[in-house]
Amino acid sequence: MTSHSPHLGILGGGQLAQMLALAALPLGVRVTVLEPDILAPARLCATHLHAPYTDAAGLDALAGCDAVTLEFENVPVEVLTALEGRVPVRPERALLERSKHRAHEKEALQEAGARTAPFVVIETEANLDGALERVGRQGILKTSELGYDGKGQSRVSDAAGLQSAWDELGRVPCVLEGLVQFEREVSLAVARGPDGALAFGPLIENVHRNGILRTSLFLEGDPHEAQAREIAGRVAGAWGLEGLMTLEFFGLPEGELLVNEVAPRVHNSGHLTQDGGGVSQFDAQVRAVLGLPLADWRPLHPCAMVNIIGAEGKTPDWAGIDALPGTRLHLYHKAWRAGRKLGHVNLVTADEQTLRARLSQLETLIP
Amino acid sequence: MTSHSPHLGILGGGQLAQMLALAALPLGVRVTVLEPDILAPARLCATHLHAPYTDAAGLDALAGCDAVTLEFENVPVEVLTALEGRVPVRPERALLERSKHRAHEKEALQEAGARTAPFVVIETEANLDGALERVGRQGILKTSELGYDGKGQSRVSDAAGLQSAWDELGRVPCVLEGLVQFEREVSLAVARGPDGALAFGPLIENVHRNGILRTSLFLEGDPHEAQAREIAGRVAGAWGLEGLMTLEFFGLPEGELLVNEVAPRVHNSGHLTQDGGGVSQFDAQVRAVLGLPLADWRPLHPCAMVNIIGAEGKTPDWAGIDALPGTRLHLYHKAWRAGRKLGHVNLVTADEQTLRARLSQLETLIP
Repeated sequence: MTSHSPHLGILGGGQLAQMLALAALPLGVRVTVLEPDILAPARLCATHLHAPYTDAAGLDALAGCDAVTLEFENVPVEVLTALEGRVPVRPERALLERSKHRAHEKEALQEAGARTAPFVVIETEANLDGALERVGRQGILKTSELGYDGKGQSRVSDAAGLQSAWDELGRVPCVLEGLVQFEREVSLAVARGPDGALAFGPLIENVHRNGILRTSLFLEGDPHEAQAREIAGRVAGAWGLEGLMTLEFFGLPEGELLVNEVAPRVHNSGHLTQDGGGVSQFDAQVRAVLGLPLADWRPLHPCAMVNIIGAEGKTPDWAGIDALPGTRLHLYHKAWRAGRKLGHVNLVTADEQTLRARLSQLETLIP
Repeated sequence: MTSHSPHLGILGGGQLAQMLALAALPLGVRVTVLEPDILAPARLCATHLHAPYTDAAGLDALAGCDAVTLEFENVPVEVLTALEGRVPVRPERALLERSKHRAHEKEALQEAGARTAPFVVIETEANLDGALERVGRQGILKTSELGYDGKGQSRVSDAAGLQSAWDELGRVPCVLEGLVQFEREVSLAVARGPDGALAFGPLIENVHRNGILRTSLFLEGDPHEAQAREIAGRVAGAWGLEGLMTLEFFGLPEGELLVNEVAPRVHNSGHLTQDGGGVSQFDAQVRAVLGLPLADWRPLHPCAMVNIIGAEGKTPDWAGIDALPGTRLHLYHKAWRAGRKLGHVNLVTADEQTLRARLSQLETLIP
């Protein structure tokens, strides 16, 4: 921290930007977000440039910040071009371009020495030939760009199915991934300062429902943590990360971790770090991007998170959540819509047994 | 918590309002502050009505909130009159009027069964006669209204000194308090919902420097906690508190607590609850004022706070603070001025011994 008041620009103004801003303000950091949605959650705690990402005046304002980061990687490439040389954008352009393109990301992961599921790039009709056999006969066809939360994906198990799945996805560039028999899904975030200093978040176990994260769990002494840190540190170094990125992994039955995908930013699975004690993933991204001192951010307590997702005709039992000891509510001030992430509840307890018992209760309170 | 988005109004927009707003947003609560200072810290995370407290349009806007609270009790009485019957103001008018008047507050404390230091109300020349003898020969003359952080106070030990002190204070209504030989200064906050439900903050030990809070400390198992809770609960009930108030106590050598003064709001001594784990005093005030479920807010760890106060020619060692494990910085985005509270550093550790060692280090980093 320096004695002047640093100014951080953020591309995107959704809930991740909102929580980045809530973490930034106490650090003495002013925040400006560029976001076309007039009801962007971050408008409540940041200066909101209400304009398209490509807006020249908006980009000029971001160029006046001390550094620019993002909460949303699918920004048009001309945005990064427009900022280039004017203000540090962290993570930088090459890393972002890679992480928004599934095939390039997997190639770059393998180059950095991280294992992934087997995959075949599908860009032409000819690529379909023998593709399923090469990934192990069962696979998931995913668009190379713009997929998230299970969208733009289709499971396939024969050639005809692969053909029709690709047709349905509009024959855009895709990746066919081999279906991995995994035991668990885990994630871990890594931050790297402009000086190359590394720091890590905790290992977090994730449970998805309908392709969307439902529950995350942090427990002390996770057996996968050392391996995940080693992979994350290696990739962060190889890719020249400046900022924070989150790796999602498949944990195989024999103990090995495959990287599933990489988000070049804070991640839904890391929200539990807000309330487990100490620094959160949001503080860590702000610090890494502004070149402030970094240290591992690790909850001091067992903790968990359950997402609040809009569900037709159902609402959370708010009173029940409030009455359950150790819960902390985080709402994003977004309009309700089915399937939309509207908030999350963090849960902190003194010990693992209590955490598991209360987490079961909490899950019954959130449809 | 209800499923609609409650709207909280705050009289005042300083750092307490800023931190109330930072706590309110994740609860799904929108915040509007009425504050004449254009550079009010809360402007960064709340809707800022930039107008005098008595501004009719500003008060109309607050009247449209679900409830109004305050971060600053010295608001003109016509403000409370203007809001009366239009929106719940919590704490309510009678409590606020009492707590901004030192003599009335002490009388009301005694009526509620809480002990205070001996005192004599000084409103006329005649009141000076024999006043010192009645409080024990040594005393502090304090203005009944508008004193804070040691301002508007003068120590006196003889009749001539008392006379000249009163003259210097402009012969305004004052209270002469007997000088109490105390062993420690502690504080404790109590919240009470509109339904009468009570919840308590932790017992906190405070060290002042030049009349301004310098350091606060929370340790498990403080021997004064039960007594402080008992007094705070009794006063909150007797005064019909709705909202949160903080009691400052003198701890006498024989173990008894005298109430020094009461702030009808969150208090500088409670800032350490932001980072000790669990709910903070800011969450608690928001919850109490909006009638949301309440529970005791108690840090899960030993923790401490050191204020950052503007000092001529000296700045904190920011890099040293960042490098000390367990510190979390809270800056208020205020212009620097000597003697002004600019921020604070919270410190959290796993055990008391480490806390004391790191707190000594931290104090050397903050002039």
